[in-house]
Amino acid sequence: MNKKQLINQIKKKKSFLCIGLDVDLNKIPPFLLDKDDPIFEFNKAIIDATHHLAVAYKPNTAFYEAYGIKGWQSLEKTIHYLNKNYPEIFTIADAKRGDIGNTSTMYAKAFFEDLQFDSVTVAPYMGSDSVEPFLAFKDKTTILLALTSNKGGLDFQGLNVDNQKVYEHVLKTALTWKNAENLMFVVGATKAEYFKNIRTIVPNHFLLVPGIGAQGGNLQDVCKYGLTDEIGLLINSSRGIIYASNGIDFAEKATQSALKLQQEMAKLLPNH
Amino acid sequence: MNKKQLINQIKKKKSFLCIGLDVDLNKIPPFLLDKDDPIFEFNKAIIDATHHLAVAYKPNTAFYEAYGIKGWQSLEKTIHYLNKNYPEIFTIADAKRGDIGNTSTMYAKAFFEDLQFDSVTVAPYMGSDSVEPFLAFKDKTTILLALTSNKGGLDFQGLNVDNQKVYEHVLKTALTWKNAENLMFVVGATKAEYFKNIRTIVPNHFLLVPGIGAQGGNLQDVCKYGLTDEIGLLINSSRGIIYASNGIDFAEKATQSALKLQQEMAKLLPNH
Repeated sequence: MNKKQLINQIKKKKSFLCIGLDVDLNKIPPFLLDKDDPIFEFNKAIIDATHHLAVAYKPNTAFYEAYGIKGWQSLEKTIHYLNKNYPEIFTIADAKRGDIGNTSTMYAKAFFEDLQFDSVTVAPYMGSDSVEPFLAFKDKTTILLALTSNKGGLDFQGLNVDNQKVYEHVLKTALTWKNAENLMFVVGATKAEYFKNIRTIVPNHFLLVPGIGAQGGNLQDVCKYGLTDEIGLLINSSRGIIYASNGIDFAEKATQSALKLQQEMAKLLPNH
Repeated sequence: MNKKQLINQIKKKKSFLCIGLDVDLNKIPPFLLDKDDPIFEFNKAIIDATHHLAVAYKPNTAFYEAYGIKGWQSLEKTIHYLNKNYPEIFTIADAKRGDIGNTSTMYAKAFFEDLQFDSVTVAPYMGSDSVEPFLAFKDKTTILLALTSNKGGLDFQGLNVDNQKVYEHVLKTALTWKNAENLMFVVGATKAEYFKNIRTIVPNHFLLVPGIGAQGGNLQDVCKYGLTDEIGLLINSSRGIIYASNGIDFAEKATQSALKLQQEMAKLLPNH
């Protein structure tokens, strides 16, 4: 999927919502545990109940790997289900990969070719040749960690280098890489005060923004400086939607939570 | 496995060699491709042919993920084979993971509990709470990327922060984390001139050193400043050993290549 298709979907749905499929067997409705593949059944129900309100889904690979081969089967079934039934949806493998050149190519193949995700999250620590192999894939998006939403996010991202922060160097340097137009950046919603400055560095790239809801980030604050003429934001919510209830009504409650966010987004979109 | 057991194994074998199992179906002997699981058959033969010369094996997860579920099955079979037949071997999942706290815990479970690796490589970009969940596991080792061997390694690791490099901050900061005694650090052999300084920051921790051989690093240079009273080094070689031949004699040639490195190591070990 290319950027234009994503923007068209956002305009059509009046939503820039991404739903994080971080599925923990200890948190899903207990009645699903009797199913052959509880994780996939859960995802399928959540997707069916929210696909008209969201433009992207983001399974975090950690939650699948923790269950071994069975977890990877659930991940594979989930992405196949999305691609088959909702081909307009932008899919994100939240994998935070990154390795030396030839090895990053193997990761890119894993997510772009084998699993057929539209995008994958990548960590910048190893530099240009750890990211460029992902960028080489046409109509695929590489989402680079810039400023993350967690407590320790600023431990290294916030270090001062020549009156700039490390994350600013990451943003600026990434723009010089080959096929930089295939980049998006992760910027946490818990750091809303940074968005104004970040938009001076990357005025046009999409930002994937986790941290709304449970982590304390605020949608209005992020949109104030984050939104662009081409929208430029994907706002992720995981727990607030997928665990809105752990009863028999979990899918219905997920719809309600997603609808609430989508309605807020519709009001914040330019020319709504 | 704890540090003492690893050191005992090194002394017994007079080797601090780690063999990287970066298995590419395009590079293994073609006759193996007829087997039901060529990757596992290849690994099994390499392990059987080199286990007396090496103290650690390091499958890079990218090479398994690239083949989807089948690749994960090969990885699972490989680690089970190692743990069952060679329990003295130190096993490293070269996965370069890292995510926010609760998600890093899921990755730690994947590699330490589900797959039963002794250690996993982790990227530092997201800071303390992305690494500490790994460190919480008793008798498991977390191997943090510090200074990597690739071309782009210095893009961000080499930035200047208050007259120090980012990688030096990573080393120093990591030492302050809870259970820091469970850390090792990745330092590339292609940066041998940095080892003297690195040993002033982390005088006692083990360093996992890729980049010998194909990438151009030199064993003597690394050992000159890297070796400690407790050895403190694991030197990784991948391509130079596992692809020493792609004929029917691949395992035999792997033994020869590993033996050559082991013999060099025996000479460099203190009190050999």
